[in-house]
Amino acid sequence: MSRFQKGETICALITPPGVGAVGVIRVSGSKAIEIVSSIFQSNKKDFKLSDAKTQTVHFGKVMDGNVILDEVLITVFRSPHSYTGEDVVEISCHGSGYIRQRLLELLQSKGALMAKPGEFTLRAFLNGKLDLSQAEAVADIIASENKSALQAAMQQMRGGYSNKIKLLRDELIRFAALIELELDFGEEDVEFANREELKTNVETLLTKIKKLLKSFELGNILKNGIPVVIAGKPNVGKSTLLNTLINDERAIVSDIAGTTRDTIEEEFNLNGIRFRFIDTAGIRSTDDTIESIGVERTFQKAAQAAVILYLFDPRNTNAASLTNEINELKNNLQLKDAAADSHIILIANKADLYDEDSIRREYATFSNLVILSAKHKTHLDLLRQKLLDVSGVEKINLQESLVTNARHAQSLRLAEEALHKVLVGLDMGISSDLIASDIRYAISQLGEITGQVSSEDLLDFIFSKFCIGK
Amino acid sequence: MSRFQKGETICALITPPGVGAVGVIRVSGSKAIEIVSSIFQSNKKDFKLSDAKTQTVHFGKVMDGNVILDEVLITVFRSPHSYTGEDVVEISCHGSGYIRQRLLELLQSKGALMAKPGEFTLRAFLNGKLDLSQAEAVADIIASENKSALQAAMQQMRGGYSNKIKLLRDELIRFAALIELELDFGEEDVEFANREELKTNVETLLTKIKKLLKSFELGNILKNGIPVVIAGKPNVGKSTLLNTLINDERAIVSDIAGTTRDTIEEEFNLNGIRFRFIDTAGIRSTDDTIESIGVERTFQKAAQAAVILYLFDPRNTNAASLTNEINELKNNLQLKDAAADSHIILIANKADLYDEDSIRREYATFSNLVILSAKHKTHLDLLRQKLLDVSGVEKINLQESLVTNARHAQSLRLAEEALHKVLVGLDMGISSDLIASDIRYAISQLGEITGQVSSEDLLDFIFSKFCIGK
Repeated sequence: MSRFQKGETICALITPPGVGAVGVIRVSGSKAIEIVSSIFQSNKKDFKLSDAKTQTVHFGKVMDGNVILDEVLITVFRSPHSYTGEDVVEISCHGSGYIRQRLLELLQSKGALMAKPGEFTLRAFLNGKLDLSQAEAVADIIASENKSALQAAMQQMRGGYSNKIKLLRDELIRFAALIELELDFGEEDVEFANREELKTNVETLLTKIKKLLKSFELGNILKNGIPVVIAGKPNVGKSTLLNTLINDERAIVSDIAGTTRDTIEEEFNLNGIRFRFIDTAGIRSTDDTIESIGVERTFQKAAQAAVILYLFDPRNTNAASLTNEINELKNNLQLKDAAADSHIILIANKADLYDEDSIRREYATFSNLVILSAKHKTHLDLLRQKLLDVSGVEKINLQESLVTNARHAQSLRLAEEALHKVLVGLDMGISSDLIASDIRYAISQLGEITGQVSSEDLLDFIFSKFCIGK
Repeated sequence: MSRFQKGETICALITPPGVGAVGVIRVSGSKAIEIVSSIFQSNKKDFKLSDAKTQTVHFGKVMDGNVILDEVLITVFRSPHSYTGEDVVEISCHGSGYIRQRLLELLQSKGALMAKPGEFTLRAFLNGKLDLSQAEAVADIIASENKSALQAAMQQMRGGYSNKIKLLRDELIRFAALIELELDFGEEDVEFANREELKTNVETLLTKIKKLLKSFELGNILKNGIPVVIAGKPNVGKSTLLNTLINDERAIVSDIAGTTRDTIEEEFNLNGIRFRFIDTAGIRSTDDTIESIGVERTFQKAAQAAVILYLFDPRNTNAASLTNEINELKNNLQLKDAAADSHIILIANKADLYDEDSIRREYATFSNLVILSAKHKTHLDLLRQKLLDVSGVEKINLQESLVTNARHAQSLRLAEEALHKVLVGLDMGISSDLIASDIRYAISQLGEITGQVSSEDLLDFIFSKFCIGK
């Protein structure tokens, strides 16, 4: 029997563990109020925590035996009006490591257990406050570091495609029921499920699933960032451009006092979308073995990249030789012309060292050309706009639900496969029991996304990736 | 005019900035509720934050334009029922760096200013919720990493010696008034203040101030830890003992899941008291210049230490030579015999390699002898008890107010000096105006402790040492 089933009360620090003015400890479970009452002394005479209404805050002292451990604020949430759906008490204490640690020890000595990673959210799921995909979105919200990733996660947490998937699944369950009815009649060869209607419906379902899977491409980009490669011959200014793009962003961020960001080495946000640089060695022919490995890697990475920034110094090349360079790059990447061109931004760097107009004339035939100076930070806006255009991210509708979770995409793919088998089976007129089996498989895959079907292993897998306190 | 005087509303993250499930942002000032209302949408229809009662919690969404930034809990504290004494709104959001940052940006766009370090506590002081020494204790509470330092800070925050000092100061003000009355009468040579009575009273005051200053010695130890030196010839096991003492403690701490402590390299807690090791080079005669500098430093540090652990390997020495070693150490430290002995713990290490009883007989004349094995961790309890005995910390009454703040000690010292001058002046029969001037000086020094006298510079100095969010 799980801790949840046994009705155990759990506790954990829910704010980050570092230095700060305030720390918050959450206690959740049927004994939350009783346990906190046993160490809390209100500043109001005759006040009892057990009488507190839901969502009220109370000032007082936490007692460690007969000494005061800390002056705290206690917030009471009564079931079901809490994050977990259980009785919850949150203790806001001073942000000392010793106080937080001792407070958790005291709670444990009164019968609370330390919460495991994700256990509060697991309980919210088990108590029906959130479905599984919503619960998973909570972790994504916490991890989100830019506007678009946050919006995708927020959509998901607020229901997003959960409802769509539940509807799809309900339809499949209806089909499955009809077909399984046929099986009950065994040899009698009745057809409750109209095969043509079934086929049409499965096709409709497949279209919807494909659309969700398609959204995963975008969702994944929003979550993990758009891969960008900076390529070009040595000394054309690749590092300078990289630093300029990254540091400009960083300077904006650090303008806001009181917010500390972990240093992110090689990415930047543009209109709330994350662009992630992939480090590459300079592209050029070389006889040096180690360097040539570097060059090969560049090609591999460029092939995966959504956008390639190809830098050149227009004084050292001309239209003809640049065409050769680009063709060589495309060859190495095994990209077809049209696809490649639309993903490559050509950057004529060092604009301060030549006449822009003559360069513009020389390279007039190239699309996606940007003339700029990475060093003097001129025309960077043009490059930023080009990045948004070429990556296609501006077309993403952030208000729509996007699948961002790889586990969900995997389940959708397996459901898609199973439904394909159903279609093939229907065309071949194979027996009802095989068709029913494939439908059941698709049903269970869709159910795993929302948690309507879930094993203990699956829940362990999902919630162990959460941080403690969530 | 300060931001406080202008009635500005301020905001800051009050929880640590790292990764965690939840972050809390505090908004304080006359427009706190209005500003938060403008970005908050309750989940309850027709609910308005401006109608919320004090100390109630409300669930809803923070809107970033027309998209949802986050689902949050809003806690309302109405003036004067808040930390600062002003209207305060606390926003509990998901622990994403992006959300926290964007939320602070939104609050600023609606008119809130970023709080400076300590500004919330400064406002609590300016609004009369705390006196200055209580406000300073808040920073000490947050920084406290063990039981005794926390208790000393907690005493101070809860009033502690503030009241004592206010009473002392009030008495001085009464004297000053009487003496200044004499000055008003100028040449008339009247004495409103009885000189004998004044003298007795000043002496009583001095006794009380001296007692507070004496408590600073203990308070300082609780705050900064008791200095301990491990000394002894090379290869007697000093490092092993150091690691054993430190790591045992660390193992206990890391047992509690969910609490992260900054690694503290060379200290450990014993009964809630911090012992701080001072690293030293091995003590021995040497011709090597650099090493001899190290040895000299050892002596300097040992002289400052409250406790000296002198390790030896009893197989390589005997009672006579140990006596010489100890005498040499005491000589170098220029400590008198009795004082030195009471601060030195002699440790016969490597107890697994010899017969304890015979060693005990050999060294029977030495007080403070502990036989143990640092490597096999035997008899460490004996050493721990000896450390508590020798350092005298067990005699500290943690329920009493201790002065732990160097600024307060400094003010007390200056007040003490001024009152000494008053005594001398009274004996010498010097003029009232000089005596009045010294008394006024003592009054202002005592006032600076509690903040009854405070300059903007002093407040800046004190609160700039706080973390942001407090």
